[in-house]
Amino acid sequence: MEYRSGYGFPAEILADRPRMERLFDNKWFFVGMRGDIPNRRDYLKFSLFDEEYFLVHGQDGEIHGYVNRCAHQSARLLNEDVGRCAARIICPNHQWAFDANNGALIHAPHMCENFAKSEDGQTHRLDQIAIREIGTMLFACLGENPNHNEIDRMADLIAPYTAPFASAAHGYKRAYHHREIIDANWLLVMINNRECCHCAQNHKRLLALFDPSSFNGTTTPEYQALIEAAKTRWDAQGLAWKEMPFDPDENFRIARYPLAPGFQSITFDGRLASQKLIGPFENGKPDSSTLSFWLNPNCWVHFTSDHIATNWVLPLSENRCELYTSWIVHADAEEHEDYDPDHMKEVWLVTNEEDVGLCKSMSEGASSRYYKPGPFSDSEQFCTQFCDWYMRATEL
Amino acid sequence: MEYRSGYGFPAEILADRPRMERLFDNKWFFVGMRGDIPNRRDYLKFSLFDEEYFLVHGQDGEIHGYVNRCAHQSARLLNEDVGRCAARIICPNHQWAFDANNGALIHAPHMCENFAKSEDGQTHRLDQIAIREIGTMLFACLGENPNHNEIDRMADLIAPYTAPFASAAHGYKRAYHHREIIDANWLLVMINNRECCHCAQNHKRLLALFDPSSFNGTTTPEYQALIEAAKTRWDAQGLAWKEMPFDPDENFRIARYPLAPGFQSITFDGRLASQKLIGPFENGKPDSSTLSFWLNPNCWVHFTSDHIATNWVLPLSENRCELYTSWIVHADAEEHEDYDPDHMKEVWLVTNEEDVGLCKSMSEGASSRYYKPGPFSDSEQFCTQFCDWYMRATEL
Amino acid sequence: MEYRSGYGFPAEILADRPRMERLFDNKWFFVGMRGDIPNRRDYLKFSLFDEEYFLVHGQDGEIHGYVNRCAHQSARLLNEDVGRCAARIICPNHQWAFDANNGALIHAPHMCENFAKSEDGQTHRLDQIAIREIGTMLFACLGENPNHNEIDRMADLIAPYTAPFASAAHGYKRAYHHREIIDANWLLVMINNRECCHCAQNHKRLLALFDPSSFNGTTTPEYQALIEAAKTRWDAQGLAWKEMPFDPDENFRIARYPLAPGFQSITFDGRLASQKLIGPFENGKPDSSTLSFWLNPNCWVHFTSDHIATNWVLPLSENRCELYTSWIVHADAEEHEDYDPDHMKEVWLVTNEEDVGLCKSMSEGASSRYYKPGPFSDSEQFCTQFCDWYMRATEL
Repeated sequence: MEYRSGYGFPAEILADRPRMERLFDNKWFFVGMRGDIPNRRDYLKFSLFDEEYFLVHGQDGEIHGYVNRCAHQSARLLNEDVGRCAARIICPNHQWAFDANNGALIHAPHMCENFAKSEDGQTHRLDQIAIREIGTMLFACLGENPNHNEIDRMADLIAPYTAPFASAAHGYKRAYHHREIIDANWLLVMINNRECCHCAQNHKRLLALFDPSSFNGTTTPEYQALIEAAKTRWDAQGLAWKEMPFDPDENFRIARYPLAPGFQSITFDGRLASQKLIGPFENGKPDSSTLSFWLNPNCWVHFTSDHIATNWVLPLSENRCELYTSWIVHADAEEHEDYDPDHMKEVWLVTNEEDVGLCKSMSEGASSRYYKPGPFSDSEQFCTQFCDWYMRATEL
Repeated sequence: MEYRSGYGFPAEILADRPRMERLFDNKWFFVGMRGDIPNRRDYLKFSLFDEEYFLVHGQDGEIHGYVNRCAHQSARLLNEDVGRCAARIICPNHQWAFDANNGALIHAPHMCENFAKSEDGQTHRLDQIAIREIGTMLFACLGENPNHNEIDRMADLIAPYTAPFASAAHGYKRAYHHREIIDANWLLVMINNRECCHCAQNHKRLLALFDPSSFNGTTTPEYQALIEAAKTRWDAQGLAWKEMPFDPDENFRIARYPLAPGFQSITFDGRLASQKLIGPFENGKPDSSTLSFWLNPNCWVHFTSDHIATNWVLPLSENRCELYTSWIVHADAEEHEDYDPDHMKEVWLVTNEEDVGLCKSMSEGASSRYYKPGPFSDSEQFCTQFCDWYMRATEL
Repeated sequence: MEYRSGYGFPAEILADRPRMERLFDNKWFFVGMRGDIPNRRDYLKFSLFDEEYFLVHGQDGEIHGYVNRCAHQSARLLNEDVGRCAARIICPNHQWAFDANNGALIHAPHMCENFAKSEDGQTHRLDQIAIREIGTMLFACLGENPNHNEIDRMADLIAPYTAPFASAAHGYKRAYHHREIIDANWLLVMINNRECCHCAQNHKRLLALFDPSSFNGTTTPEYQALIEAAKTRWDAQGLAWKEMPFDPDENFRIARYPLAPGFQSITFDGRLASQKLIGPFENGKPDSSTLSFWLNPNCWVHFTSDHIATNWVLPLSENRCELYTSWIVHADAEEHEDYDPDHMKEVWLVTNEEDVGLCKSMSEGASSRYYKPGPFSDSEQFCTQFCDWYMRATEL
């Protein structure tokens, strides 16, 4: 069946793994924040299809990305989800050691003495992937010829929003993170994320924080009043707020939105998640708003006055994916003093879990022999954008 | 290897999923009793291969069958195993609402106002499957052209037996049900069900209730005496009892059998499972017998004086199937007052579990590269009948 | 990618299941000790790919091997991992009974009376596999034409080492056994077993018992002194010790090695694992050494003064295998009196578990699209031997 714009994907597209793989070979995707790995030797793993990769904060201060596989006998180099490694990347099998800055073999015990430095030895290095950092946000591309023009254009568009936060880039840390394997088709998880028509029934608690017009491209007099007041306030503070919508040539939407009156952060009770404010708010007062990023192909990220909540999803197979959520706070914020786990994590743990149920359900239904794609409504315009973009991005 | 009548199936037949699918597209199969869903809006799910379906008791009083998949974005409509739905079938994702009587779209929130009633909207309806009710027994057929002559012939043959129970059709309810996923080939589960040569060793408790001659097509002087006395009693009460055996043109066997002396119902202690008698016994005394149905392709059902025990098995893949057992009682019977779960459920839970072990074992053995089909004995004549019937029913 | 001697296997070889199957059809592999099933009717199961087999100690005193599948309706004959069966092998489904000495059908209940003895009945026998015993060690070969010359040559080489233990062959029993399913490629498990370069980091406790020169083909003055003293002692006692290395034409390595000073057996504390000594030590004193067998394709076995520790690994699929470990002791040794489970089993349970982690890790890495085989060091010569041997043994 042919793809038809304005409708969900045909089953053939949903199950087309080579097409999904093509996407991640050609496009930059979000993999985390510098705040996830703020110190030298910090690392963070992620999986994509059957591969494991890791980001590591090099001795040179830069973030590098590698395949998590030793060049000797293919053992996993790093076994924990997140952690801190040695000054060199050392394989736990035979202690081959690699340079975290470039993947070169430094030492190969049991091999002849000069093997590591030899021409042969230098062919055994870590497989490296391209990483780019834009205002503390980290992007990866797997292909051998990553499109640098594209990431440069993204940087031009993103930077004005993240700059006030990035100036304090080395002043963040990860407070918490959460990983979940979802038995659902990755495309359907992204589609679910791109619309809020399911929110009224499924995200009753989340809706207390936001006006649906923030997501649906619709508006109401109440929302109009709320956002006009907010814009005046944001202009006065010099905060970027202009909505940058998804459009045919761009793969992202950025917008600053007001939170519901009385809410200072993305928490169910509206209170700050962390007492130490960040970025442009560090020396001021919290603002009742969020700077939100929905980036194709795989993330949604919220910068509030006190923390950054990141969510990315990556496919593991046609019917499985991994969701990673992290909460980034000021480097000086202290657990239990300035923030508490249950309070900080609640909104995304609850909301994502509600979505996981729907996504599994849609995936099961889509594998039915009776399946046929259904139409998106006008309020689901960003689903149509995502599907159209995906088809273009993965054309042969 | 070619199939040979009188022998088990060759490995190629056991693993031939398209052949199994052909069966359920062309033949009617048992999916439950009206007593499983006695009230309007009651539903019952069942799975077949990778599909989920559900039966629902419509607002029109009829039982309807649908694929459990929303016509919008393919989410599961009903998530529980059994339950009661809204007056309309409402998708938990975006609240599209469908008519339970015919599957038509009634309301589609977020779509333009008249979408549901529009020509386009009416193409988005639930996928419906054919359901037929015969004396409170429910049958489904998946294919687009169900054979109505065949189900009419079945009705002619079944009705005389079920009529005395069906007259009180709306006076039943499900007391309990049990589902189990079995890691075994569906055909081997049915073959195991069709013979009792394994009973002496594996169903020691069940054999206290029955004489093996009831199943094996054999007889003994003791059994002859027992059944002759019973026939006299049944004739006096006007109860249908004549054995209707499987034969080459029919896909079922019906028989009324005496229980062992002292047994009033199918319970290990012989006492009634429910104090409220049903059907022809409702206003009389219990009879020490069972009216038994073995219907191809997939069930065995026992009507005793006090309850109806149903068992059906449906394939989920070549090596997995689902067994559903339900216990139907008089609508006025009260739990703990008239019946108790452990007492009522024990015989089939214990017996089926014994069979599950054998069926897994046979399935593992049948996937061996050393496997070759073995011969059925004369006492396994109904296995031969089942295998012959299956081959004919699935011929191309 | 082509295999290159001195390097690990290309991914294509690791995933080549038909090649692995060819190996076990053509080569003899280790499956246990007579001490695992010392008494008539004792049996031991093992699995290889999707098949289950069992060894049984026949009424004739010989060890026989069969496929664990009834010739009637393919049920598993024996359900426990190890155990004692009836005098005949009786299927738990319909009680067909087979002769444990040759697999012939003896009795088939429900079939016509003379079926078992009939020409037709005699075609329904257990599928038998070839078994050979060499000095209490048991070897199997699956193919229809096992190479008897090859096992005869092995017997000539092995017998001088095992003879002193075999003379007491009927005086052993299995004290314990342990089975573990490993999610790793079977070839990588064997390669891991063939080198000790990973020991320093991963087997810190094991290394207290051995000098690495025992495994690495290297030597040091300390080791030289230790082994020279041992050789003098062994010669005085008439113990075979000469190292029989893997070489291109042989598929095994045998060696007697000294244990570290102070160690009397393969235990972490160096104390005897069993107080009843065995074989040549039965009426004497323990010797601080082990007689070790590394046999291709699948085992490592240690004979110490007090017990025999066996380890074999067999593939279940391309990425799964089973590890069986057993501890064989003197038939008169009493649990808790002469040996204790935690003390006896500790070394191999701990060491194997450490290796399991590495093997899973290597297998995951080897399934990477970035995978390429790495070089073996000189200290990993036995890995190269194993890989070369495997390629030759599985050539078409």
